[in-house]
Amino acid sequence: MTTRTVRIAISGLGNLGARFIKLMLDKRNELRDRYDLDLVIVAAVDSRGAAQDPRGLDLNLVLNTKESTGTIGNYPRCGTLGMTSLDLAGQVSADVWCDATPVNIDRKAEPGISCIRTAMRRGMHVVTPNKGPIVLFYQELTQLARECGVQLRFGGTVAGGLPALYIGRRDLRGARIERMEAIPNLVTGFILDHIAAGSSWEQALDLAKGEGVLEADPSWDLDGWDAAAKLVILTNAVLSYPTRLEDVELTGITGLSTQDIRSGRRMRLLATAVRAGSGYELRVAPQSLSEDHPLAHLGPKEMGITYYTDIYGTITATIKEETPLPSAATMLRDILDIMLKTEA
Amino acid sequence: MTTRTVRIAISGLGNLGARFIKLMLDKRNELRDRYDLDLVIVAAVDSRGAAQDPRGLDLNLVLNTKESTGTIGNYPRCGTLGMTSLDLAGQVSADVWCDATPVNIDRKAEPGISCIRTAMRRGMHVVTPNKGPIVLFYQELTQLARECGVQLRFGGTVAGGLPALYIGRRDLRGARIERMEAIPNLVTGFILDHIAAGSSWEQALDLAKGEGVLEADPSWDLDGWDAAAKLVILTNAVLSYPTRLEDVELTGITGLSTQDIRSGRRMRLLATAVRAGSGYELRVAPQSLSEDHPLAHLGPKEMGITYYTDIYGTITATIKEETPLPSAATMLRDILDIMLKTEA
Repeated sequence: MTTRTVRIAISGLGNLGARFIKLMLDKRNELRDRYDLDLVIVAAVDSRGAAQDPRGLDLNLVLNTKESTGTIGNYPRCGTLGMTSLDLAGQVSADVWCDATPVNIDRKAEPGISCIRTAMRRGMHVVTPNKGPIVLFYQELTQLARECGVQLRFGGTVAGGLPALYIGRRDLRGARIERMEAIPNLVTGFILDHIAAGSSWEQALDLAKGEGVLEADPSWDLDGWDAAAKLVILTNAVLSYPTRLEDVELTGITGLSTQDIRSGRRMRLLATAVRAGSGYELRVAPQSLSEDHPLAHLGPKEMGITYYTDIYGTITATIKEETPLPSAATMLRDILDIMLKTEA
Repeated sequence: MTTRTVRIAISGLGNLGARFIKLMLDKRNELRDRYDLDLVIVAAVDSRGAAQDPRGLDLNLVLNTKESTGTIGNYPRCGTLGMTSLDLAGQVSADVWCDATPVNIDRKAEPGISCIRTAMRRGMHVVTPNKGPIVLFYQELTQLARECGVQLRFGGTVAGGLPALYIGRRDLRGARIERMEAIPNLVTGFILDHIAAGSSWEQALDLAKGEGVLEADPSWDLDGWDAAAKLVILTNAVLSYPTRLEDVELTGITGLSTQDIRSGRRMRLLATAVRAGSGYELRVAPQSLSEDHPLAHLGPKEMGITYYTDIYGTITATIKEETPLPSAATMLRDILDIMLKTEA
């Protein structure tokens, strides 16, 4: 078998993007040996500049340039300060466009969404763990991918490194899903467990910030928007039920007192889709889980999903993520899945 | 999109096979609507006869004939008493050969294995929840499938309806699996839980027989052979480490006293593969699981698997099977997966 080269362009060099670059650095030889695939980063772009090299960028140099100068635009010889991600999407020759930019719901998922559209129209597969474009434009993007004959993968959007979407879309084929319950947000579980164990709200929030799991604007997580966005993606992609953020009945965890959290069973922010008529009713709310609930025993660094089906029983999948590496690794999973489609 | 017809031949009309026929009966219209696939059973065979109809057998008549006369060979007009599964494999025109015959390790997986070889050589995809051929002939069969340009799927061999193989083979691509732990056998967990709750060994065995979960020869389950066979399949197919039943260090549950079982934490027959050098060490043994073990909270009708990986964290998948339907439904999952390969 001959080795195939996979040319990757990556947009976004924050935590996720940088971790993905490191992963490519670590795994390149192993992937070549195991899958006959040579994964080459031919372009990278951040908010201040870009770098391109059709022969492949030097990944150590990518990381060093970004870290020492703040932008990949300063990459020796091949860097261009001021080049935007949209500029890059419009001209780069790559097989896969990876969008690892921030969610930006308020800015209607820009600049990610425009780059994704451009990349697909130019024949690139798209891989993204960025919830923004998928939660806001799922129908349009899946339609566009079909028209352009490319694959759109977003395995990292719903529960870090857990393959919740793949399990739902592929392994439950043929089933009717009666109900779906997920704990897709890490930081709320972390905070609830610390409060349950005796911390005050302030202490728990500080611990979460210290661990780097809480965003600068904590309301995205705490008010349940992150869980709701993930539920909307799961509902569209797994349940094939077109839905939007506004369809979710949403209660965050901020209204809970320490007393609420400490009384009784384990409390989690649960995202639920329940079959109702020809569709599903969607809800995100804190819930105390009984001992025999399949997600009742998740630890503070764990997420999970349960599918209640007509023919495959009740299937639960969970992940323990000690670091954000699994979330970045979903981009690798998605790329390999696109490239190795013909194998089981 | 035009509807594609998928012609299925099924060998074995015991519990699994009959449940699969019922499933096809229930789901045919739904599958046509959702996937543009028309699944047609063109042939069926049991140990005493066969029936064939290229236009598709009447599935109610298949079930009635089998139930009322003991063999499908009496199927009106299209039945042939005395026709064997190997006869059928050698002459039927089908797209998929489903083997739902018993395991038969002692008889070197016959007649399943010979039929599977014949079916593949004649260009049929093969789907089987029968562990026998896969545990004994994995390398040969995967090689033969490649040579014949067909797919070999055996999703139902390792943990009932749980997609343990698909998760391991596809969703963990790119990862190094450091350790794999599974509770792949239902009946041992059922028995251990009943003894833990106060039953005697005899009572627990009777309960298991009453539920229909214990085979006539209970030693396959109780001495750990079933779990070992599943571990060998997982090790070959997911860990890509060629291995045989003899490589498993095996301890069943029969040596446990009621006192052992009742002392302390939840006891389960655990199948483990641990990376050692360039390979894996395999072990099946009863183990009491600590509270924070990802498989510690499985109920008496549940199975599960945990993958400890380098880049995707620790991923656990579990299934609750109230009935054997999910095991039969794995044949549907496998068929749909073969036919819908181009989609996510």
